[in-house]
Amino acid sequence: MHFKIFGDVKSGNCLKVKWTADYLGLTYDWIETDVMKKANRTQAFLKINPAAQVPAVQFDDGRVLSQSNALITYFAESQGSNLMPAEAWARAKVNQWLFWEQYSHEPAIAVRRFKRAYLGLADADLDPSLLDKGLAALGQMEDALIGEDFLTGNDFTVADIALVAYTRMAGDGGYDLQSFPAIVQWIGRVEHELGLSPYPGYKHL
Amino acid sequence: MHFKIFGDVKSGNCLKVKWTADYLGLTYDWIETDVMKKANRTQAFLKINPAAQVPAVQFDDGRVLSQSNALITYFAESQGSNLMPAEAWARAKVNQWLFWEQYSHEPAIAVRRFKRAYLGLADADLDPSLLDKGLAALGQMEDALIGEDFLTGNDFTVADIALVAYTRMAGDGGYDLQSFPAIVQWIGRVEHELGLSPYPGYKHL
Repeated sequence: MHFKIFGDVKSGNCLKVKWTADYLGLTYDWIETDVMKKANRTQAFLKINPAAQVPAVQFDDGRVLSQSNALITYFAESQGSNLMPAEAWARAKVNQWLFWEQYSHEPAIAVRRFKRAYLGLADADLDPSLLDKGLAALGQMEDALIGEDFLTGNDFTVADIALVAYTRMAGDGGYDLQSFPAIVQWIGRVEHELGLSPYPGYKHL
Repeated sequence: MHFKIFGDVKSGNCLKVKWTADYLGLTYDWIETDVMKKANRTQAFLKINPAAQVPAVQFDDGRVLSQSNALITYFAESQGSNLMPAEAWARAKVNQWLFWEQYSHEPAIAVRRFKRAYLGLADADLDPSLLDKGLAALGQMEDALIGEDFLTGNDFTVADIALVAYTRMAGDGGYDLQSFPAIVQWIGRVEHELGLSPYPGYKHL
Protein backbone atom coordinates (compact mmCIF):
# COMPACT_ATOMS: atom_id res chain seq x y z
CA MET A 1 0.00 0.00 0.00
CA HIS A 2 1.09 3.57 -0.64
CA PHE A 3 -0.41 6.68 0.86
CA LYS A 4 -0.05 10.33 1.76
CA ILE A 5 0.18 11.44 5.39
CA PHE A 6 -1.25 14.93 5.87
CA GLY A 7 0.53 15.98 9.03
CA ASP A 8 2.11 18.83 10.96
CA VAL A 9 5.62 18.09 12.22
CA LYS A 10 4.91 20.04 15.41
CA SER A 11 2.13 17.60 16.35
CA GLY A 12 2.84 14.47 18.36
CA ASN A 13 -0.38 12.99 16.99
CA CYS A 14 1.06 13.30 13.48
CA LEU A 15 4.53 12.09 14.44
CA LYS A 16 3.04 8.89 15.90
CA VAL A 17 1.73 8.03 12.47
CA LYS A 18 5.05 8.79 10.77
CA TRP A 19 7.02 6.75 13.30
CA THR A 20 4.71 3.76 13.00
CA ALA A 21 4.88 3.86 9.20
CA ASP A 22 8.68 4.09 9.36
CA TYR A 23 8.93 1.27 11.92
CA LEU A 24 6.86 -0.98 9.65
CA GLY A 25 8.81 -0.01 6.55
CA LEU A 26 5.79 1.51 4.78
CA THR A 27 6.32 4.01 1.98
CA TYR A 28 4.41 7.26 1.89
CA ASP A 29 4.55 10.92 1.03
CA TRP A 30 4.43 13.39 3.90
CA ILE A 31 2.26 16.41 3.06
CA GLU A 32 3.14 19.10 5.56
CA THR A 33 -0.11 20.68 6.78
CA ASP A 34 0.62 23.61 9.08
CA VAL A 35 -2.25 24.01 11.52
CA MET A 36 -1.05 27.42 12.70
CA LYS A 37 -1.36 28.61 9.10
CA LYS A 38 -4.83 27.00 8.93
CA ALA A 39 -3.77 24.53 6.24
CA ASN A 40 -6.31 22.16 7.85
CA ARG A 41 -9.14 24.61 7.09
CA THR A 42 -8.76 24.87 3.32
CA GLN A 43 -11.58 23.56 1.12
CA ALA A 44 -9.16 21.01 -0.34
CA PHE A 45 -8.26 19.63 3.07
CA LEU A 46 -11.83 19.60 4.36
CA LYS A 47 -12.73 17.32 1.45
CA ILE A 48 -10.13 14.88 2.78
CA ASN A 49 -11.07 15.24 6.43
CA PRO A 50 -14.28 17.12 7.28
CA ALA A 51 -13.19 17.08 10.93
CA ALA A 52 -10.36 19.50 9.94
CA GLN A 53 -7.91 17.43 11.96
CA VAL A 54 -4.42 16.20 11.23
CA PRO A 55 -3.18 13.55 10.87
CA ALA A 56 -5.22 12.21 7.98
CA VAL A 57 -4.06 9.53 5.58
CA GLN A 58 -5.20 9.21 1.99
CA PHE A 59 -4.41 5.93 0.26
CA ASP A 60 -3.66 5.88 -3.44
CA ASP A 61 -7.11 4.40 -4.18
CA GLY A 62 -8.74 7.43 -2.53
CA ARG A 63 -9.75 5.90 0.81
CA VAL A 64 -9.17 8.20 3.78
CA LEU A 65 -8.57 7.36 7.44
CA SER A 66 -8.12 9.81 10.29
CA GLN A 67 -7.55 9.72 14.07
CA SER A 68 -3.94 9.02 14.97
CA ASN A 69 -4.60 5.99 17.14
CA ALA A 70 -6.94 4.43 14.56
CA LEU A 71 -4.19 4.95 11.98
CA ILE A 72 -1.37 3.35 13.93
CA THR A 73 -3.62 0.42 14.83
CA TYR A 74 -4.58 -0.04 11.17
CA PHE A 75 -0.98 0.08 10.00
CA ALA A 76 -0.01 -2.55 12.57
CA GLU A 77 -2.99 -4.82 11.83
CA SER A 78 -2.70 -4.59 8.07
CA GLN A 79 0.96 -5.63 8.32
CA GLY A 80 0.32 -8.42 10.82
CA SER A 81 2.68 -6.68 13.23
CA ASN A 82 2.92 -7.45 16.94
CA LEU A 83 2.72 -3.70 17.54
CA MET A 84 -0.98 -4.61 17.92
CA PRO A 85 -1.07 -8.02 19.61
CA ALA A 86 -3.34 -10.73 18.18
CA GLU A 87 -4.58 -12.00 21.55
CA ALA A 88 -7.84 -10.40 22.72
CA TRP A 89 -6.85 -9.44 26.26
CA ALA A 90 -3.46 -8.02 25.19
CA ARG A 91 -5.27 -6.00 22.52
CA ALA A 92 -7.74 -4.76 25.11
CA LYS A 93 -4.97 -3.41 27.35
CA VAL A 94 -3.35 -1.67 24.37
CA ASN A 95 -6.71 -0.11 23.51
CA GLN A 96 -7.19 1.01 27.12
CA TRP A 97 -3.95 3.00 26.88
CA LEU A 98 -4.84 4.40 23.44
CA PHE A 99 -8.22 5.73 24.58
CA TRP A 100 -6.77 6.99 27.86
CA GLU A 101 -4.08 8.85 25.91
CA GLN A 102 -6.61 10.78 23.85
CA TYR A 103 -8.91 11.58 26.78
CA SER A 104 -6.71 11.99 29.84
CA HIS A 105 -3.18 12.71 28.61
CA GLU A 106 -3.16 14.60 25.29
CA PRO A 107 -5.79 17.22 26.27
CA ALA A 108 -3.57 18.29 29.18
CA ILE A 109 0.04 17.63 28.19
CA ALA A 110 -0.17 18.42 24.47
CA VAL A 111 -2.42 21.41 25.03
CA ARG A 112 -0.20 22.94 27.73
CA ARG A 113 2.86 22.42 25.50
CA PHE A 114 1.11 24.07 22.55
CA LYS A 115 0.04 27.08 24.60
CA ARG A 116 3.52 27.60 26.07
CA ALA A 117 5.77 26.64 23.19
CA TYR A 118 3.74 27.84 20.21
CA LEU A 119 1.29 30.45 21.47
CA GLY A 120 3.90 31.84 23.88
CA LEU A 121 1.58 32.06 26.86
CA ALA A 122 3.03 32.53 30.33
CA ASP A 123 2.36 29.93 33.00
CA ALA A 124 0.31 32.43 34.96
CA ASP A 125 -2.08 32.76 32.02
CA LEU A 126 -2.72 29.03 31.70
CA ASP A 127 -5.68 27.18 33.20
CA PRO A 128 -4.15 25.62 36.37
CA SER A 129 -6.18 22.44 35.81
CA LEU A 130 -3.97 21.66 32.80
CA LEU A 131 -0.95 21.28 35.07
CA ASP A 132 -2.82 19.19 37.64
CA LYS A 133 -4.40 16.95 35.02
CA GLY A 134 -1.09 16.40 33.22
CA LEU A 135 0.77 15.59 36.44
CA ALA A 136 -1.94 13.10 37.38
CA ALA A 137 -1.56 11.44 33.97
CA LEU A 138 2.22 11.26 34.31
CA GLY A 139 1.81 9.81 37.81
CA GLN A 140 -0.37 7.02 36.45
CA MET A 141 2.16 6.25 33.72
CA GLU A 142 5.01 6.22 36.25
CA ASP A 143 3.15 3.73 38.45
CA ALA A 144 2.41 1.52 35.45
CA LEU A 145 6.01 1.57 34.20
CA ILE A 146 7.84 0.77 37.43
CA GLY A 147 9.43 -2.64 36.86
CA GLU A 148 8.11 -2.89 33.28
CA ASP A 149 9.84 -2.41 29.96
CA PHE A 150 6.74 -1.16 28.16
CA LEU A 151 3.23 0.03 29.03
CA THR A 152 1.58 -3.34 28.60
CA GLY A 153 4.53 -5.39 29.88
CA ASN A 154 7.35 -7.01 27.95
CA ASP A 155 6.23 -6.13 24.45
CA PHE A 156 6.61 -2.90 22.51
CA THR A 157 3.22 -1.89 21.08
CA VAL A 158 1.36 1.01 19.50
CA ALA A 159 0.42 2.02 23.06
CA ASP A 160 4.06 2.97 23.65
CA ILE A 161 4.24 4.87 20.36
CA ALA A 162 1.01 6.76 21.12
CA LEU A 163 2.06 7.71 24.64
CA VAL A 164 5.66 8.60 23.95
CA ALA A 165 4.71 11.24 21.39
CA TYR A 166 3.68 13.95 23.83
CA THR A 167 5.28 12.46 26.96
CA ARG A 168 8.82 13.04 25.63
CA MET A 169 7.85 16.66 24.90
CA ALA A 170 6.24 17.17 28.32
CA GLY A 171 9.11 19.41 29.44
CA ASP A 172 8.06 21.92 26.78
CA GLY A 173 4.70 22.01 28.57
CA GLY A 174 6.31 22.79 31.92
CA TYR A 175 6.11 19.28 33.38
CA ASP A 176 9.28 18.15 35.17
CA LEU A 177 10.08 14.70 33.79
CA GLN A 178 12.93 14.28 36.30
CA SER A 179 10.22 13.53 38.86
CA PHE A 180 9.23 10.45 36.86
CA PRO A 181 12.32 8.23 36.50
CA ALA A 182 10.49 5.16 35.22
CA ILE A 183 8.96 7.31 32.47
CA VAL A 184 12.36 8.74 31.53
CA GLN A 185 13.85 5.25 31.22
CA TRP A 186 10.87 4.09 29.16
CA ILE A 187 11.17 7.10 26.82
CA GLY A 188 14.74 6.02 26.15
CA ARG A 189 13.63 2.47 25.33
CA VAL A 190 10.89 3.67 22.98
CA GLU A 191 13.18 6.17 21.27
CA HIS A 192 15.67 3.33 20.74
CA GLU A 193 12.97 1.09 19.21
CA LEU A 194 11.90 3.89 16.88
CA GLY A 195 15.43 5.02 16.03
CA LEU A 196 14.80 8.53 17.37
CA SER A 197 17.41 10.84 18.86
CA PRO A 198 16.89 11.58 22.57
CA TYR A 199 14.48 14.48 22.93
CA PRO A 200 16.29 17.56 24.25
CA GLY A 201 15.56 19.39 27.48
CA TYR A 202 15.88 16.83 30.26
CA LYS A 203 18.49 14.48 31.68
CA HIS A 204 18.28 11.05 30.10
CA LEU A 205 18.76 8.12 32.48
CA MET B 1 -16.85 -14.90 31.57
CA HIS B 2 -18.46 -13.08 34.46
CA PHE B 3 -17.62 -9.63 35.71
CA LYS B 4 -18.64 -6.55 37.65
CA ILE B 5 -19.29 -3.26 35.87
CA PHE B 6 -18.50 -0.29 38.11
CA GLY B 7 -20.64 2.38 36.52
CA ASP B 8 -22.79 5.44 37.05
CA VAL B 9 -26.22 5.24 35.40
CA LYS B 10 -26.06 8.97 34.60
CA SER B 11 -22.98 8.41 32.39
CA GLY B 12 -23.30 7.57 28.71
CA ASN B 13 -19.79 6.11 28.84
CA CYS B 14 -21.02 3.61 31.43
CA LEU B 15 -24.31 2.88 29.67
CA LYS B 16 -22.41 1.97 26.47
CA VAL B 17 -20.74 -0.84 28.37
CA LYS B 18 -24.03 -2.06 29.87
CA TRP B 19 -25.81 -2.00 26.50
CA THR B 20 -23.01 -3.90 24.75
CA ALA B 21 -22.93 -6.53 27.48
CA ASP B 22 -26.71 -6.88 27.28
CA TYR B 23 -26.69 -7.07 23.47
CA LEU B 24 -24.12 -9.86 23.60
CA GLY B 25 -25.98 -11.72 26.35
CA LEU B 26 -23.14 -11.43 28.87
CA THR B 27 -23.88 -11.78 32.56
CA TYR B 28 -22.53 -9.29 35.06
CA ASP B 29 -23.22 -7.42 38.27
CA TRP B 30 -23.69 -3.66 38.00
CA ILE B 31 -21.99 -1.84 40.88
CA GLU B 32 -23.47 1.64 40.96
CA THR B 33 -20.62 4.11 41.45
CA ASP B 34 -21.97 7.63 41.87
CA VAL B 35 -19.39 10.10 40.64
CA MET B 36 -21.21 13.08 42.14
CA LYS B 37 -20.86 11.40 45.54
CA LYS B 38 -17.15 10.74 44.74
CA ALA B 39 -17.61 6.97 44.81
CA ASN B 40 -14.85 6.91 42.17
CA ARG B 41 -12.41 8.51 44.65
CA THR B 42 -12.56 5.95 47.46
CA GLN B 43 -9.43 3.95 48.28
CA ALA B 44 -11.28 0.78 47.32
CA PHE B 45 -12.18 2.11 43.87
CA LEU B 46 -8.74 3.59 43.21
CA LYS B 47 -7.29 0.11 43.70
CA ILE B 48 -9.54 -1.05 40.86
CA ASN B 49 -8.92 1.95 38.60
CA PRO B 50 -6.12 4.37 39.56
CA ALA B 51 -7.45 6.74 36.89
CA ALA B 52 -10.56 7.23 39.11
CA GLN B 53 -12.77 6.83 36.05
CA VAL B 54 -15.95 4.90 35.45
CA PRO B 55 -16.72 2.62 33.74
CA ALA B 56 -14.28 0.00 34.97
CA VAL B 57 -14.84 -3.74 34.67
CA GLN B 58 -13.41 -6.30 37.06
CA PHE B 59 -13.51 -9.90 35.88
CA ASP B 60 -13.99 -12.70 38.40
CA ASP B 61 -10.30 -13.66 38.09
CA GLY B 62 -9.32 -10.15 39.21
CA ARG B 63 -8.30 -8.66 35.85
CA VAL B 64 -9.46 -5.07 35.35
CA LEU B 65 -10.16 -3.16 32.15
CA SER B 66 -11.20 0.48 31.83
CA GLN B 67 -12.00 2.99 29.07
CA SER B 68 -15.51 2.56 27.70
CA ASN B 69 -14.50 2.10 24.07
CA ALA B 70 -11.77 -0.40 24.94
CA LEU B 71 -14.38 -2.32 26.93
CA ILE B 72 -17.04 -2.51 24.24
CA THR B 73 -14.39 -3.50 21.68
CA TYR B 74 -13.13 -6.24 23.99
CA PHE B 75 -16.61 -7.60 24.65
CA ALA B 76 -17.31 -7.75 20.91
CA GLU B 77 -13.95 -9.34 20.04
CA SER B 78 -14.01 -11.88 22.83
CA GLN B 79 -17.46 -13.03 21.66
CA GLY B 80 -16.53 -13.07 17.97
CA SER B 81 -19.33 -10.56 17.34
CA ASN B 82 -19.68 -8.50 14.18
CA LEU B 83 -20.15 -5.47 16.42
CA MET B 84 -16.39 -5.22 15.76
CA PRO B 85 -15.84 -6.35 12.17
CA ALA B 86 -13.07 -8.84 11.42
CA GLU B 87 -11.86 -7.14 8.23
CA ALA B 88 -9.00 -4.66 8.78
CA TRP B 89 -10.39 -1.65 6.90
CA ALA B 90 -13.87 -1.99 8.42
CA ARG B 91 -12.24 -2.20 11.86
CA ALA B 92 -10.19 0.90 11.08
CA LYS B 93 -13.30 2.94 10.27
CA VAL B 94 -14.98 1.77 13.48
CA ASN B 95 -11.86 2.78 15.42
CA GLN B 96 -11.81 6.18 13.70
CA TRP B 97 -15.32 6.86 15.06
CA LEU B 98 -14.44 5.52 18.53
CA PHE B 99 -11.41 7.78 18.90
CA TRP B 100 -13.26 10.75 17.39
CA GLU B 101 -16.08 10.21 19.90
CA GLN B 102 -13.77 10.48 22.89
CA TYR B 103 -11.84 13.48 21.57
CA SER B 104 -14.29 15.58 19.55
CA HIS B 105 -17.79 14.62 20.68
CA GLU B 106 -17.89 13.57 24.35
CA PRO B 107 -15.81 16.49 25.70
CA ALA B 108 -18.37 18.91 24.25
CA ILE B 109 -21.75 17.17 24.24
CA ALA B 110 -21.41 15.11 27.42
CA VAL B 111 -19.72 17.93 29.30
CA ARG B 112 -22.35 20.53 28.35
CA ARG B 113 -25.12 18.10 29.32
CA PHE B 114 -23.47 17.42 32.69
CA LYS B 115 -23.04 21.11 33.46
CA ARG B 116 -26.66 21.94 32.54
CA ALA B 117 -28.52 18.86 33.74
CA TYR B 118 -26.51 17.91 36.84
CA LEU B 119 -24.62 21.01 37.95
CA GLY B 120 -27.60 23.23 37.09
CA LEU B 121 -25.54 25.87 35.29
CA ALA B 122 -27.30 28.42 33.08
CA ASP B 123 -26.38 28.63 29.40
CA ALA B 124 -24.89 32.08 29.96
CA ASP B 125 -22.41 30.60 32.43
CA LEU B 126 -21.13 27.93 30.04
CA ASP B 127 -18.03 28.21 27.87
CA PRO B 128 -19.50 29.14 24.44
CA SER B 129 -16.94 26.90 22.72
CA LEU B 130 -18.78 23.87 24.13
CA LEU B 131 -21.85 24.72 22.06
CA ASP B 132 -19.84 25.40 18.90
CA LYS B 133 -17.73 22.27 19.26
CA GLY B 134 -20.78 20.08 19.90
CA LEU B 135 -22.69 21.50 16.94
CA ALA B 136 -19.68 20.89 14.71
CA ALA B 137 -19.55 17.28 15.90
CA LEU B 138 -23.26 16.78 15.27
CA GLY B 139 -22.86 18.32 11.81
CA GLN B 140 -20.16 15.80 10.95
CA MET B 141 -22.34 12.92 12.14
CA GLU B 142 -25.32 14.23 10.15
CA ASP B 143 -23.23 14.38 6.97
CA ALA B 144 -21.93 10.85 7.55
CA LEU B 145 -25.40 9.42 8.22
CA ILE B 146 -27.29 10.85 5.25
CA GLY B 147 -28.25 7.85 3.14
CA GLU B 148 -26.67 5.36 5.56
CA ASP B 149 -28.21 3.05 8.12
CA PHE B 150 -25.25 3.14 10.49
CA LEU B 151 -22.06 5.16 10.95
CA THR B 152 -19.85 2.80 8.98
CA GLY B 153 -22.49 1.82 6.43
CA ASN B 154 -24.88 -1.12 6.45
CA ASP B 155 -23.68 -2.82 9.60
CA PHE B 156 -24.45 -2.03 13.23
CA THR B 157 -21.19 -1.79 15.18
CA VAL B 158 -19.71 -0.61 18.47
CA ALA B 159 -19.21 2.77 16.76
CA ASP B 160 -22.99 3.23 16.76
CA ILE B 161 -23.24 2.18 20.40
CA ALA B 162 -20.43 4.53 21.43
CA LEU B 163 -21.85 7.51 19.56
CA VAL B 164 -25.51 7.04 20.43
CA ALA B 165 -24.82 7.20 24.16
CA TYR B 166 -24.42 10.97 24.43
CA THR B 167 -25.96 11.88 21.07
CA ARG B 168 -29.44 10.76 22.16
CA MET B 169 -29.04 12.90 25.31
CA ALA B 170 -27.77 15.93 23.39
CA GLY B 171 -31.05 17.79 23.99
CA ASP B 172 -30.23 17.79 27.71
CA GLY B 173 -27.08 19.67 26.75
CA GLY B 174 -29.01 22.32 24.84
CA TYR B 175 -28.35 20.98 21.34
CA ASP B 176 -31.40 20.95 19.07
CA LEU B 177 -31.53 17.48 17.54
CA GLN B 178 -34.44 18.48 15.28
CA SER B 179 -31.84 20.24 13.12
CA PHE B 180 -30.20 16.87 12.43
CA PRO B 181 -32.85 14.58 10.88
CA ALA B 182 -30.46 11.86 9.74
CA ILE B 183 -29.12 11.66 13.30
CA VAL B 184 -32.64 11.40 14.74
CA GLN B 185 -33.51 8.54 12.39
CA TRP B 186 -30.24 6.79 13.21
CA ILE B 187 -30.87 7.15 16.96
CA GLY B 188 -34.17 5.34 16.41
CA ARG B 189 -32.44 2.49 14.57
CA VAL B 190 -29.78 2.10 17.25
CA GLU B 191 -32.33 2.24 20.08
CA HIS B 192 -34.26 -0.50 18.26
CA GLU B 193 -31.14 -2.68 17.94
CA LEU B 194 -30.38 -2.22 21.63
CA GLY B 195 -33.98 -2.63 22.80
CA LEU B 196 -34.02 0.83 24.37
CA SER B 197 -37.07 3.04 24.78
CA PRO B 198 -36.94 6.26 22.74
CA TYR B 199 -35.08 8.91 24.70
CA PRO B 200 -37.44 11.67 25.83
CA GLY B 201 -37.25 15.34 24.90
CA TYR B 202 -37.36 15.49 21.12
CA LYS B 203 -39.64 14.46 18.29
CA HIS B 204 -38.75 11.03 16.97
CA LEU B 205 -38.91 10.63 13.19
